[in-house]
Amino acid sequence: MVDADRFLADLDALREIGRVGSGVVRPAFSKADRDARLWLADRFRAAGLRPVFDPLGSLFGLPKDGDGPWLLVGSHSDSQPTGGWLDGALGVIAGLEAARVAGEAGGPPVAVVSFQDEEGRFGGLIGSRYFCGELSLDEALARRDSTGVRLADARTDWPELADTAPVSPALFTGYVEAHIEQGAELDSRGERAAVVEAITGSRQWDVRFIGEQNHAGTTRMARRRDAMRGLARLYLRLDDALGKIADDATVWTVGRVDLTPNAHSIVPGAASFTVQWRDCDADRLDRMQDAVGGEIAHVAKETGLEFETEERVRIEPARMDPALVALAEQAAEAVVPGAWRRLPSGAIHDAGPVSRVMPAVMVFSPSIGGVSHSFAEDTRREDLAACAEIVARTASGRGA
Amino acid sequence: MVDADRFLADLDALREIGRVGSGVVRPAFSKADRDARLWLADRFRAAGLRPVFDPLGSLFGLPKDGDGPWLLVGSHSDSQPTGGWLDGALGVIAGLEAARVAGEAGGPPVAVVSFQDEEGRFGGLIGSRYFCGELSLDEALARRDSTGVRLADARTDWPELADTAPVSPALFTGYVEAHIEQGAELDSRGERAAVVEAITGSRQWDVRFIGEQNHAGTTRMARRRDAMRGLARLYLRLDDALGKIADDATVWTVGRVDLTPNAHSIVPGAASFTVQWRDCDADRLDRMQDAVGGEIAHVAKETGLEFETEERVRIEPARMDPALVALAEQAAEAVVPGAWRRLPSGAIHDAGPVSRVMPAVMVFSPSIGGVSHSFAEDTRREDLAACAEIVARTASGRGA
Repeated sequence: MVDADRFLADLDALREIGRVGSGVVRPAFSKADRDARLWLADRFRAAGLRPVFDPLGSLFGLPKDGDGPWLLVGSHSDSQPTGGWLDGALGVIAGLEAARVAGEAGGPPVAVVSFQDEEGRFGGLIGSRYFCGELSLDEALARRDSTGVRLADARTDWPELADTAPVSPALFTGYVEAHIEQGAELDSRGERAAVVEAITGSRQWDVRFIGEQNHAGTTRMARRRDAMRGLARLYLRLDDALGKIADDATVWTVGRVDLTPNAHSIVPGAASFTVQWRDCDADRLDRMQDAVGGEIAHVAKETGLEFETEERVRIEPARMDPALVALAEQAAEAVVPGAWRRLPSGAIHDAGPVSRVMPAVMVFSPSIGGVSHSFAEDTRREDLAACAEIVARTASGRGA
Repeated sequence: MVDADRFLADLDALREIGRVGSGVVRPAFSKADRDARLWLADRFRAAGLRPVFDPLGSLFGLPKDGDGPWLLVGSHSDSQPTGGWLDGALGVIAGLEAARVAGEAGGPPVAVVSFQDEEGRFGGLIGSRYFCGELSLDEALARRDSTGVRLADARTDWPELADTAPVSPALFTGYVEAHIEQGAELDSRGERAAVVEAITGSRQWDVRFIGEQNHAGTTRMARRRDAMRGLARLYLRLDDALGKIADDATVWTVGRVDLTPNAHSIVPGAASFTVQWRDCDADRLDRMQDAVGGEIAHVAKETGLEFETEERVRIEPARMDPALVALAEQAAEAVVPGAWRRLPSGAIHDAGPVSRVMPAVMVFSPSIGGVSHSFAEDTRREDLAACAEIVARTASGRGA
């Protein structure tokens, strides 16, 4: 049984490290990120765990007795450049509490982790992808942030990363990650938890329609090859075409648009924009891709435009492990009976890559108003405590 | 009868002042602009005209004999930041040649003008609007360019502007302006000249759709209030609604779009964009405005967005003088029989404001490929000479 006061006190303490207003500024390899991980290492020690950094700064808390394998519970403690206090932190402290509960119950020992750079200063999921073997150390070290700083240089200020070695996934039997939902499905229904059955994959294309830049006064409508016209038509055709393929949780977004030359009296000669789509079903992602490609070609032809496309993101969907999902559902029903649901995750998480090397499951806690990646991000304290209890029960293997 | 070699030699000589590649860089109050006007003043003197600067740097060449009133012929010699060699320059040198022809023929004397800042360093049509009384000297002097320089400061380097006085429109009986078409109506038909019957008015609104900025992975389609969706729908509805009101020469343009925050993984919270429409008929501009306003409100309601609109440009259409148009048409038929047409002007010109204080007409010369405001702008030399001849005949009052 989780000690809710102890758990919430640690969550509040972590919030103070890099705190700005009601949020936190604790991006990967910032001073606050290091301070948080050194504080976590102390907390791990106090809980009877052995803190172990890997070469990229992911921090593991390994049980002192035995060689494993153990269940791994955690998330990440780095934040967005202006982040919320719970995103990631909730899962790490829930892991710490689960390890303490396991120790106190004499149950199977639990290991804890805070992966590095989930939020993407150097690309996103850096720590978990390295842990899983999807990203080599050299590839990771060569990555640069948006200001040009190399990860290899950012980590030189961390003496604790000297003489570190990778931590093997073979040490663990499975992975449990708690996280805030970051959407409004739970909060809007007054529900208190969710068990994640799958994490959406995403695809993203950079698209460019190329027409003819002209004087907006002297170029008649019939002669125009207006790149903005192509974008507007494509947008509505995608709504139709993708809407027919989608289920309730499928999403697609045109989030970035740059016209050339972007001047009020000039017919746009080019429109560069992103088309992103996400779904839990790889086959549906493929069918959406066919529709996106087909509609771009159709609209370009119809409007007399040229086009270019480039795939920029391709993240495969991740299925959570059915046995762990069943266990987490029993725990959820025991802790918040009738007030939880299964959900797919629209956001990416460390559990995505980890699920490809071991069984994994996620537990979501409601986001008030669906707000996240914002100082305003928050969750009711009783829901946070319930989340920790569901995680601890799942980790103990006893569910209900 | 125009001396084509003399006319083209002067046009070529003016091109050398501020020349960059095949184009010119001669924006208002640049050194090249002043050099060009001082050179023009010399050419006016050599043609028997008295050069007179007004306080804003518009340069008039007034006949030495008598007090007028005279016919005024000209355009502007300032250029876009990276401009073509003919835009404006053609009309000024055609005016100079018309004055020479009038002198040689012993006909009624012709006055010449190069208005200042037609191209808009300080706002557009500055010289002609000041001349016509639409803009006061104080208003003009207070204007700033895009880098913050005040017109009042830009002109202090021009000693010839000390002790100047406004030039009264009452000195002139009418205005004839030659200009390149800047569109492709003539070139695409192989035609050699046009007589302008009207100059389009234009209206421009800044529009902002305001929705809700959200995570593009966790916010389901049904919950989104995506500002980009509003823009796409509006664009296509405007095509329908304005298409029903338009005639062949009516144009409308969404030239500038700025999404907030303009990021690939964020549902756009706001879309700011321009809607501009142009036509020669003030009543049609009004009906288009009703449609624009109605469609914005309709789309905002349909997509759950808020909206804001602000009128940024309102330029009334200008009718050319029927008697001068008839005279120019007789001249065009005499010079390029069967190879000219009437056209409205989709671009604004000094003849717009001038037409509100005296009878005015414009003559267009073809733009090869419709290209202008570009170093690539060009016109066949025989068409330039034909344009000068049409202007000289119109100015002489003899048409054919």
